[in-house]
Amino acid sequence: MNVDEELEDLQERIEDEIPGGIAISDVEYEGPELVIYTSDPKKFADDGDLVRDLARKLRKRITVRPDPGVLTDPEPAKDEIDGIVPDDAGITDYDFKPDVGEVVIKAEKPGLVIGKHGSTLREITKATGWTPDVVRTPPIESSTVDNIRRYLTQESDERKEFLRQTGRRIHREETSDDEWVRVTTLGCGREVGRAAFLLSTPETRILIDCGDKPGTDETPYLQAPEANPLQSIDAVVLTHAHLDHSALVPLLYKYGYDGPIYTTPPTRDLMSLLTVDYLDVAAKQGRTPPYDSEMVREAIKHTITLDYGEVTDIAPDIKLTFHNAGHILGSAVVHFHIGDGLYNVGFSGDIHYDETRLFNGAVNDFPRLETLFLESTYGGRNDQAPSQEEAEEKLIKLIRKTHDDGGKVLIPAFAVGRSQEMMIVLEEAMRKGRIPEMPVYLDGMIWEATAIHTAHPEYLNDDLRDRIFHEDENPFLADCFQQVDEGTEQRQEIRDGEPAIILATNGMMAGGPVMEHLEMLAPDPENSLAFVGYQAEGTTGARIESGRDEVRVPSSDGRSETVKIKMNVYSVDGFSGHGDRDELISFVDEMNPRPEKIFTVHGDEGKTKALASALYQNFNMRTISPMNLETHRFI
Amino acid sequence: MNVDEELEDLQERIEDEIPGGIAISDVEYEGPELVIYTSDPKKFADDGDLVRDLARKLRKRITVRPDPGVLTDPEPAKDEIDGIVPDDAGITDYDFKPDVGEVVIKAEKPGLVIGKHGSTLREITKATGWTPDVVRTPPIESSTVDNIRRYLTQESDERKEFLRQTGRRIHREETSDDEWVRVTTLGCGREVGRAAFLLSTPETRILIDCGDKPGTDETPYLQAPEANPLQSIDAVVLTHAHLDHSALVPLLYKYGYDGPIYTTPPTRDLMSLLTVDYLDVAAKQGRTPPYDSEMVREAIKHTITLDYGEVTDIAPDIKLTFHNAGHILGSAVVHFHIGDGLYNVGFSGDIHYDETRLFNGAVNDFPRLETLFLESTYGGRNDQAPSQEEAEEKLIKLIRKTHDDGGKVLIPAFAVGRSQEMMIVLEEAMRKGRIPEMPVYLDGMIWEATAIHTAHPEYLNDDLRDRIFHEDENPFLADCFQQVDEGTEQRQEIRDGEPAIILATNGMMAGGPVMEHLEMLAPDPENSLAFVGYQAEGTTGARIESGRDEVRVPSSDGRSETVKIKMNVYSVDGFSGHGDRDELISFVDEMNPRPEKIFTVHGDEGKTKALASALYQNFNMRTISPMNLETHRFI
Repeated sequence: MNVDEELEDLQERIEDEIPGGIAISDVEYEGPELVIYTSDPKKFADDGDLVRDLARKLRKRITVRPDPGVLTDPEPAKDEIDGIVPDDAGITDYDFKPDVGEVVIKAEKPGLVIGKHGSTLREITKATGWTPDVVRTPPIESSTVDNIRRYLTQESDERKEFLRQTGRRIHREETSDDEWVRVTTLGCGREVGRAAFLLSTPETRILIDCGDKPGTDETPYLQAPEANPLQSIDAVVLTHAHLDHSALVPLLYKYGYDGPIYTTPPTRDLMSLLTVDYLDVAAKQGRTPPYDSEMVREAIKHTITLDYGEVTDIAPDIKLTFHNAGHILGSAVVHFHIGDGLYNVGFSGDIHYDETRLFNGAVNDFPRLETLFLESTYGGRNDQAPSQEEAEEKLIKLIRKTHDDGGKVLIPAFAVGRSQEMMIVLEEAMRKGRIPEMPVYLDGMIWEATAIHTAHPEYLNDDLRDRIFHEDENPFLADCFQQVDEGTEQRQEIRDGEPAIILATNGMMAGGPVMEHLEMLAPDPENSLAFVGYQAEGTTGARIESGRDEVRVPSSDGRSETVKIKMNVYSVDGFSGHGDRDELISFVDEMNPRPEKIFTVHGDEGKTKALASALYQNFNMRTISPMNLETHRFI
Repeated sequence: MNVDEELEDLQERIEDEIPGGIAISDVEYEGPELVIYTSDPKKFADDGDLVRDLARKLRKRITVRPDPGVLTDPEPAKDEIDGIVPDDAGITDYDFKPDVGEVVIKAEKPGLVIGKHGSTLREITKATGWTPDVVRTPPIESSTVDNIRRYLTQESDERKEFLRQTGRRIHREETSDDEWVRVTTLGCGREVGRAAFLLSTPETRILIDCGDKPGTDETPYLQAPEANPLQSIDAVVLTHAHLDHSALVPLLYKYGYDGPIYTTPPTRDLMSLLTVDYLDVAAKQGRTPPYDSEMVREAIKHTITLDYGEVTDIAPDIKLTFHNAGHILGSAVVHFHIGDGLYNVGFSGDIHYDETRLFNGAVNDFPRLETLFLESTYGGRNDQAPSQEEAEEKLIKLIRKTHDDGGKVLIPAFAVGRSQEMMIVLEEAMRKGRIPEMPVYLDGMIWEATAIHTAHPEYLNDDLRDRIFHEDENPFLADCFQQVDEGTEQRQEIRDGEPAIILATNGMMAGGPVMEHLEMLAPDPENSLAFVGYQAEGTTGARIESGRDEVRVPSSDGRSETVKIKMNVYSVDGFSGHGDRDELISFVDEMNPRPEKIFTVHGDEGKTKALASALYQNFNMRTISPMNLETHRFI
């Protein structure tokens, strides 16, 4: 049965299932969803179980959309909605999308707009025809999130056509009788960075991640014949937004790929923030960026977001499910179910198995999983990290001492993840009096990244999520935090001012505002520099951490100058977004059932091999440390 | 430096090296050779060491060709040559090729045409301008060999252009800075048949073998993206002519490949014989052949033959050398030297390590070899074969007994290899009186295959080669051997006649003339059927060998009929063209140095794994049994 026949068949079955008198004008795939167009959206909304029953019977994700023309005009519709939704809901914005018959309602308490089992939503549809999509009014405005929403509205016609084509491609007839499953490692084999894998079957090719390799120009092996032509790839699946996983995703569109990117909503937003910044940094450093910001917009336009746990068809023979990875906001362990029970393969992305102040621990529980690609960043024999408590203790001590000396503490941190964690630690320490009250300056994209965190509270751990929605408990809104404006003036004032803490990007001192703070603070022995994350070889951070007493840094006029390091230098281990070796082993140990095979990737050569060897010895499973450009077959 | 610049540079260097007064009109690559065109071929021939010295200095294989126009006309040239070459040489034919300025001289004693260190050859050139190419007059005429020679002469313009293009492609500038070497298993991973590997580097792709899988329609995974587009493949390298290595080579030209095939001269001839027969059998069985005989001619036109031991550039970064494999006529172990000392990888093809009546044992001595792909046909734990002496003893006994009973012995055998071995065994046994004198009928392509063997005596073992050129000792010319004509009449006469031995194709009773003999001889309990080779699952041979007392076979009218097996059935192990398990292990044991890694291929799953395990345990080397569609990287 081809797609058109299948859709006709589905329309007939739907018409048989629903009460008479509800007119179905069209049935169409849009991305992984089956969309039912009706001129009777109000009648559809009458029966609260109707869509759910249909979805169960047809084994499809179903969306009902009103035909254009049966919708109440936006202004009167707003009034209707205001009348239906209780005032406590705190609606702050409406966004009507006539092309899909949806109205996005921003509210401070989305639950009150949804109602019990969605009853209020149905009331809205019955009254206005519009399908409401409720989002939480974030406590901090994010320009990234707003821009993406505006852009997608503006591009909605093109986007709709893209979704329709993608939907038809996903549901195309299978053409091959052959059965095999294989994965080609296109990057991050025996190295950290440039994550990229190609999962392929006779029918389908999926690219998982497409990152850069920090401190180098090396890209994944996208030119490998396995991945070409890029147009033949069915889908890109992104585990999380860090650049070593996402930086080169927009590049795919420059090279002719025009299919979907599947990822979580926070990862889409963070990818947008980080890749635009990536282009910016490249331009500032006088390098030619591999693509321009138009390609980032293309990527956004082609992104289909999925929440954790939504089992989704992404090809005729592949179902995708994201699960929390505990690493950064929206980070996912990716699970692929291939064929009808044929094989299951997972990609950990980067994981943190223990719960952190920001996130629940990584999920390691799957109905079935025969093969896992597991990150090995800290897979080495000696990669045992101190506990987070020990790390916090050390950090607090050095802050106290520096404050007592009248100095400032500079903490280089990635905008996404580590910065938010530091904010929570510092806010709590200050609130509980463990460190003196003082300003915490945020320099770089930290504030914007924090805003994106608060726009996706359901991706944070339970405790933090709850606190964010009580304004006086939202740690990110504490008085101590002060955003630093672009330009050097405020930075000089900070240098000349009272004791303070400065969180500045980037986290490895390979550029960014942290460099200017370093230049100003380094000559003063009362100040402190605290490393709270991994410093990759070749970065200024690594050079300072290794004990150099002077380093060359680019000066503001584009040349480079020497900075003498007289400030105190501390390394505070234990804040990593990655699980340490014991965590990685526990992650595998506590899987049930354990996979048959584990591929250790995304770690230096020695670490991938050491982890492979440990897993083999502990669990007697087959373990492999694949090289880039290798292809392994599972079935 | 691009190719044109390089050729200009070479021409200057050649002009500097040679004595003044010899005019060089052009210098061009033709395939892997550098061809020097001169209007003074006679002066070139004056100095016997000139070409050798140039070759050494330029590190190139050099051919000198006269400009057209400086050549003596063929008829007077013949007379000149007759005057120069001693009568004992026994010249039987001349073939003048004006396009390359070559004259092919067929002689019974080529050595006398060549003269000491080529002195007679040079005399011929000095006298006539023509470059002589001496070939031995084969003791048995082969229509295959003649047809190929005629065809290549006819296509010489196209062939010359092909060689020129290939030469330029081989010597193109390298474009990649990257360094890696990898092999994709496209067939014969954990199975026997459909041999095919893709060796690739950033610069180059080489396809090694492209065979069918007997008894199935399965082809190698040519559609894998690694091998596509086929036009991007630089070269096909063929280990030997058996169909499970060669059958689908012509298909490549149907799919758009138009590059060279490198193989030995006997393999080219046998491939032509066997692939044409392959098409014939398919047509007779009512199957649609995957290509037609025009594609076989394309393959022949694109074949560049290399003798054992000739180190040859086949790509900017790859040198190829063939070595004797001891398996069938012209069979080769293939050695690739990659980069400038970067890596060496070998493919055993099919091997016989011990010397046989036909061939010297396989070569296992290479200057360097880091990785070997090793056949595993008999790699299983219990694959110990009886010695050839034991096998011959058993065969002789059963022949004597059948003769005494007044019956006939039917031996199904592959036309290439096993048949010639049987002929030698039977001729010797009869000559020495160990079996009574009786006719040995040869049915199928056996006679033609034997002719090809005698056309390439230098590929036979030393003893056999010597005997072939003494007419009264040439075992293939013994009186007992009688070729059976196509058609059933003579076969009926054989059935009704005196005791005899019948060697008939094909070797697994999957079709061919052997079927008709079976039908006629099977009902008589005085007759015998002797299996001397492997019977693949699903073939009539395997069914009879397993003890069935009746089998269904296709009848002459295209339907099938039941044949009752009342004749005696014997299995005579020990004649295999493959080394047994002990030989395979000795082959590796006696390598010096042993490779770091061995991939066991071309064997049933259990056997590849058993051999991998034995090699790992004996020699502590890394061993892998790759699956089809897997890619492993070495550097």
